[in-house]
Amino acid sequence: MRVAFQGEIGAFSEEAVLALFEEAELAPCATFEDVFEALTEERVERAVLPIENSLHGSVHANYDLLRDYDVQIVGECELRIRHYLLAAHGVALEDIERVYSHPQALGQCRSFLRAELSQAEAVPAHDTAGAARQIAEQDDRQAAAIASRRAADEYGLAVLASQIESNSQNYTRFWALARAEEQNAALIGDAPAKTSLMFALKENVPGALFKSLAVFALRELDLHKIESRPLIGRPGRYVFYLDVEGARHDEPVSRALGHLRELTRFVKVLGSYPQGHVVE
Amino acid sequence: MRVAFQGEIGAFSEEAVLALFEEAELAPCATFEDVFEALTEERVERAVLPIENSLHGSVHANYDLLRDYDVQIVGECELRIRHYLLAAHGVALEDIERVYSHPQALGQCRSFLRAELSQAEAVPAHDTAGAARQIAEQDDRQAAAIASRRAADEYGLAVLASQIESNSQNYTRFWALARAEEQNAALIGDAPAKTSLMFALKENVPGALFKSLAVFALRELDLHKIESRPLIGRPGRYVFYLDVEGARHDEPVSRALGHLRELTRFVKVLGSYPQGHVVE
Repeated sequence: MRVAFQGEIGAFSEEAVLALFEEAELAPCATFEDVFEALTEERVERAVLPIENSLHGSVHANYDLLRDYDVQIVGECELRIRHYLLAAHGVALEDIERVYSHPQALGQCRSFLRAELSQAEAVPAHDTAGAARQIAEQDDRQAAAIASRRAADEYGLAVLASQIESNSQNYTRFWALARAEEQNAALIGDAPAKTSLMFALKENVPGALFKSLAVFALRELDLHKIESRPLIGRPGRYVFYLDVEGARHDEPVSRALGHLRELTRFVKVLGSYPQGHVVE
Repeated sequence: MRVAFQGEIGAFSEEAVLALFEEAELAPCATFEDVFEALTEERVERAVLPIENSLHGSVHANYDLLRDYDVQIVGECELRIRHYLLAAHGVALEDIERVYSHPQALGQCRSFLRAELSQAEAVPAHDTAGAARQIAEQDDRQAAAIASRRAADEYGLAVLASQIESNSQNYTRFWALARAEEQNAALIGDAPAKTSLMFALKENVPGALFKSLAVFALRELDLHKIESRPLIGRPGRYVFYLDVEGARHDEPVSRALGHLRELTRFVKVLGSYPQGHVVE
């Protein structure tokens, strides 16, 4: 099964792909738009994309793409983001004069760099995997990269230090996507399911948000996520993201969705899928 | 008034500082933790920090700092993120071989770079303002930087192209902070106020989220933001962020907060402040 993701080989998204599809044939893409294009133009069967991070919040730009393209969520996983210090084999910590990585990863490993590599300069890169590839290709023996464990294997680098991030609570949630016509209740099987949706309220309905949550609460359907996103330039108008337990064709969920449509001017069900696991 | 912010002179946070405090004496800090330290150790009177972006979501890491430090929100603004192509005076588009910026800004201007600067290499930098400073300091005449309009003035660069970002809906919301003991209802004056809080529900209370929103809905208090944030490794447990209209000492808000405490195991009121304006 061909699976598209954004980033290079060795990127965290690749780990998510392999956690979701063990036998995946990898299809790296430059941008998130390219991932959606690859999927809807049938160049791949599945796609995997990050949707929220425990430190940095929801990726609104990807919700926008989910709203605009005719795809459905068919799975999820939560991946712990662990950073490793990688260098060519034989290079020692004291040889290192430059450490390459994405500025966010450099920031997340700041304490380690200060304590263990104070002689080295932190040099920004486009992404973590690209930093690893670069020092490997150039066989740069005065440099290290901060990247995933996987990038070490991929680019033949040694791991000089493991889990060098300061905050251990760094997780990214990924969704697996299929073309809408392939979405299929049978995919879920017997595992507990979740349904994700976006909606916008009708205007001038007092307490509309509260009422829209009531359609789930009155049916004792637990919510797993709720988030309001303001619409720029339209004060008081929002899009909401909701994850609710159950599959869209289960009776209480399908009734709740019908009820929700009475209160909203727009609902898009993004998919029903088995509740995901955490990849430590 | 001395005001701390994260980033360099010319960073977007600096624009937010000046939108909130016209006469501010700027105190740039390396990290968000440093910003909180500067404020609580009384080296500055105010601090400004980004809390959410319209494309990239809420900055959970900053909510964590707000939970841990004894500070209060006293103001807000929403800043449109506009990117500019900057270079030394006299440099033309066709001279440019390298474009420096933060990888996120390079990505946001990808279409422009492809169409107008296809000969140039995109080179990652730690941040947008730092990219501008670097080409200015080195008087690099084969290079450009993507940064704010303000960075052009600050570092004496020319603007070669304006508003080169692909998505015009890129806004960052900033909060102004003061030490908790200086928080003062008088700050709000007669402007419509907003109160921001974080809370966690008691366990095993069915429909607890719905009930916690009811304490506001039953008093006809409009919500401006609601967001659930999962607690890693504790399935089904969340922290919620809420913005509600009104000031914390207004009777309906203060009663709603009292009511909310009955349902929750933790509430922190982050502050009451005048509703902010959008800086285009």
